[in-house]
Formats: sequence, structure tokens, C-alpha cells
Amino acid sequence: MRFVRYAFKKKLAWGVLQGDRIREISEGPFKRSRLGNGFLELRQVRLLAPATPGKIVLVGLNYRNHARELGMRLPRQPIIFLKPPTAIVGPDDAVIYPQKVKRLDYEAELALVIKKSARNVAVRNALDYVLGFTCLNDITARDIQKKEGQWTRAKSFDSFCPLGPVLRTDLDPSDLKIRSYVNGRLKQDSSTRNLIFSVPELISFISGVMTLLPGDVISTGTPPGIGRLRPGDRVSVEIEGIGRLDNSVIKEDLKTG
Amino acid sequence: MRFVRYAFKKKLAWGVLQGDRIREISEGPFKRSRLGNGFLELRQVRLLAPATPGKIVLVGLNYRNHARELGMRLPRQPIIFLKPPTAIVGPDDAVIYPQKVKRLDYEAELALVIKKSARNVAVRNALDYVLGFTCLNDITARDIQKKEGQWTRAKSFDSFCPLGPVLRTDLDPSDLKIRSYVNGRLKQDSSTRNLIFSVPELISFISGVMTLLPGDVISTGTPPGIGRLRPGDRVSVEIEGIGRLDNSVIKEDLKTG
Repeated sequence: MRFVRYAFKKKLAWGVLQGDRIREISEGPFKRSRLGNGFLELRQVRLLAPATPGKIVLVGLNYRNHARELGMRLPRQPIIFLKPPTAIVGPDDAVIYPQKVKRLDYEAELALVIKKSARNVAVRNALDYVLGFTCLNDITARDIQKKEGQWTRAKSFDSFCPLGPVLRTDLDPSDLKIRSYVNGRLKQDSSTRNLIFSVPELISFISGVMTLLPGDVISTGTPPGIGRLRPGDRVSVEIEGIGRLDNSVIKEDLKTG
Repeated sequence: MRFVRYAFKKKLAWGVLQGDRIREISEGPFKRSRLGNGFLELRQVRLLAPATPGKIVLVGLNYRNHARELGMRLPRQPIIFLKPPTAIVGPDDAVIYPQKVKRLDYEAELALVIKKSARNVAVRNALDYVLGFTCLNDITARDIQKKEGQWTRAKSFDSFCPLGPVLRTDLDPSDLKIRSYVNGRLKQDSSTRNLIFSVPELISFISGVMTLLPGDVISTGTPPGIGRLRPGDRVSVEIEGIGRLDNSVIKEDLKTG
């Protein structure tokens, strides 16, 4: 199934995408939902990020060639960091280019949403804790990341976590094409089979540190081909079986915050 | 006022501490609350962490002498990182010493809780956005922190963020005594007047990166005197005008998670 979260006439709701229509459901994706009889056309609604996580855990340097392009060593264990939930924006929302940032980069990533509380989960059971998969763009102020030892500030500005468009259940994450585009030009082109640490390994590792709760997001790292964004750019993350997450970059206007 | 959050007969509530009694209030601390007529004795309840934040933003190396004891350079700007909300425990809760951690440290810190949404706040107005202050113990797996470039994992294990005991409003944070003890022995002894970046400067800086929401926590860094904890230890953070946050360290039992 393809769950979507959407806004329609000031109401926020979850539904299931069927072709170009959204079918109503009785509950959110975390409970056993019945399909309703009501439909909305996709163009009637505004799609929202398909998760409202308590935490967003990201993994750095998880594709061999990306570590190389940043001049960093291959990690022996996953390197994790967090983004604040306030960084999330949805499909077609703007990515704000902060005035204090000199270089803004895209990073296409496969993300997953946790279904049920997970603590010290074994690799072999880890996928049981996944509700579904979506696209995440790990927007990064590369100049700040390079200057500061810690990555948090470079990755935590408002709008630095586009997420969506759908939350896809029943998907095998072991070999999915993952691509990014800037203004329609292909920039990243890889497959999740090139992950250093697999999705089940990441869930097991992270749940050995912190309890994962329903709705929490884990993002799995970005393939090589990262590069910069400029105000006015249109950036897209496309993952096989999920779809395409499009966002436009606009310059921060300090008057409007 | 001294707000407390507590559990009593399976009910969670906010109240105001008056001496050894908790007075009921009509709403939580974020709304205009009326004092009720009901009282509970402090010993009848279990105190909880006095915040349920969407994010916890911490600041590294914010006392001159602490940077020196870690052999790190003084930062020219605050260095920020995040802990996940799942790391929070309350007064008297256990700090779990993970089996995979070789060296666990305490770090006494003054923390504040945000009152209202804050974005690009000026230093001169920053204290208007503070609901109150509390004690935070930034428990850190020092071996992991030293081994990995990113601090996130070392500081994100469940129970690594004791918080409490009260949320103190109407407190000037510019010169408060801050101390920590292990088994009653004084370990850290400083004042917030030794902060490199003041509380208003931190709020202004962080709100220039991310929108701060009501309930979010900012922690201001730890003074020199850090050191290790062992299973069985009792660790306390004491801050003038707030009180003392006590927690015991117990070994992780993987069977019970």
C-alpha cells in the first residue's frame, strides 16, 4: 500500500493512494485501518510528509563511494546523527536556503518509518518493525558541516528534511534504484544494494542505542554524486517503488522568518 | 514558581511545589493556570522529568575549563548536538550503564524549557521565550565519544538524559551555583557566570537555526570536573534556585531490555 498524509480544507488526514485518487481510511497507518468508501482526487489535496516522528535518525557515509567523495574513511560501524522534527517539510514544500549558509547540498536517501516500539532488535527480525519506506532529502549546509566537528547544525535548519511523497509498505529495501535530479538533470544514480550497512543492520544497531517508537524515521545514507543547490533550483529524490519527492529551493527572507 | 510533573495513581499531571506539598493547577505550565485547592504530599507521588520536549538541544564545551580538560579548543560559536526524547528519565530514575559502554560520565548542566515558539530571536528578547530552568545530567559514553567523530551515539542511549526535579520560573540564569556529586562527593563546582555563551546568546543562536517550540529543552554545557560513573553509584546535579537531581546507575540487563 501507498499511505499518504494530506491536508484538505484545513483537515489533516491519512489515506491510501490508488492511482490518482486518495481513498479514505478509518484510522492512521499505525492501526488496523479499514478502507472507506470516500475518495479524493490527488490534485484536490496538499500532500504532507508521511510521518510525524519523535526522532529522525540519520546515518552518515553508508555508500562506499560517497565516503570517498567526501575524503572520509569507511566507517566500521554506522555513524548516526539526529535531525530535529522541525526540519521536516513535505512534497513540493520549499527548502529554505539560509542567508548564513554558503553552500547547500542535496542528499537523496531511502528512509523508513518505524511501526512498533523497537529495542535491541535482532537483524533477522528488524524488518518486522518497519511500517514502510519513503524518500528523504538530507539537505546539508556543506560549508558549516566542514567547518564544525559536529554535523548537527549543518543538517538541522528548518526545511532541511523533505520527506515523501508516499509511505510504501510491503517493499523489499535490499535493491532499489535511488536517484536525484536538480532541474531535471540526473545527479545521483545508485541502488540500495550498495549500502555498506543494510536496512536490517541499521535498525538493529540503532535500536541497540535508543528505543525506536512508532512514527520514528531512520534514513539510510546517500549515494555518491552529491552537489550543490542554488535558490530557484528544483530538486528531486526518486526511489524505485516509492516515487519522486520534489522540492524547490528559495532564499531565506529574514523579514518573514 | 516551581512546577513539577508527577505520576499519582497512574495519572500524570502538573502541579506547583510549595514546601513539601504539591498544589494542583488547572492547566499545564504552558497555559495560564489557576492554582487549585487540592494538595498532595511530595512523598505520595513519583516526580517525572518536568518537560516532554519535541527536541533536546545541547551545547558542547561552553565552560572554558571544561574544553581544556577534554583537550579541545575553545569554540568561536556554540557547538550544538541533539539527544532523542527517548533518553529522558526523571528524578530518582535509574541511569542504565549499557554493556557495550566502557566509560560512562556525568555532566551537570543548567537546562531551560521553551515557553513559546521561537525563531530568529534577538539576544535582548531571548529570555522572554523561557518558561523555566531545571537540572540536566548529560550522561555520556566517553569511550564512544572519543572513538567516533559524531557525539550523537555516545549521548543518545535510553536514560542518558536525567532531567528535573522542578521547573523553576522567574530565575536569573546569569550567576547560579552549579555542582555535581557522586556518592555524596563533590565533583563539579562552578557558576553559570563562567559560561562562554550566555543563556540568551544560546537561545538566539539556536533559534537562528531551528524553530524552538513550547516544551523544547536547551542545555547549556557542563563545567570542569567531569568524571566516570560505575554501576551502583548515586549521581546528583545541584543548581542554585532549582534543587537537586538524583539518579542511581545500574548495569544494563539485556534480558529485560
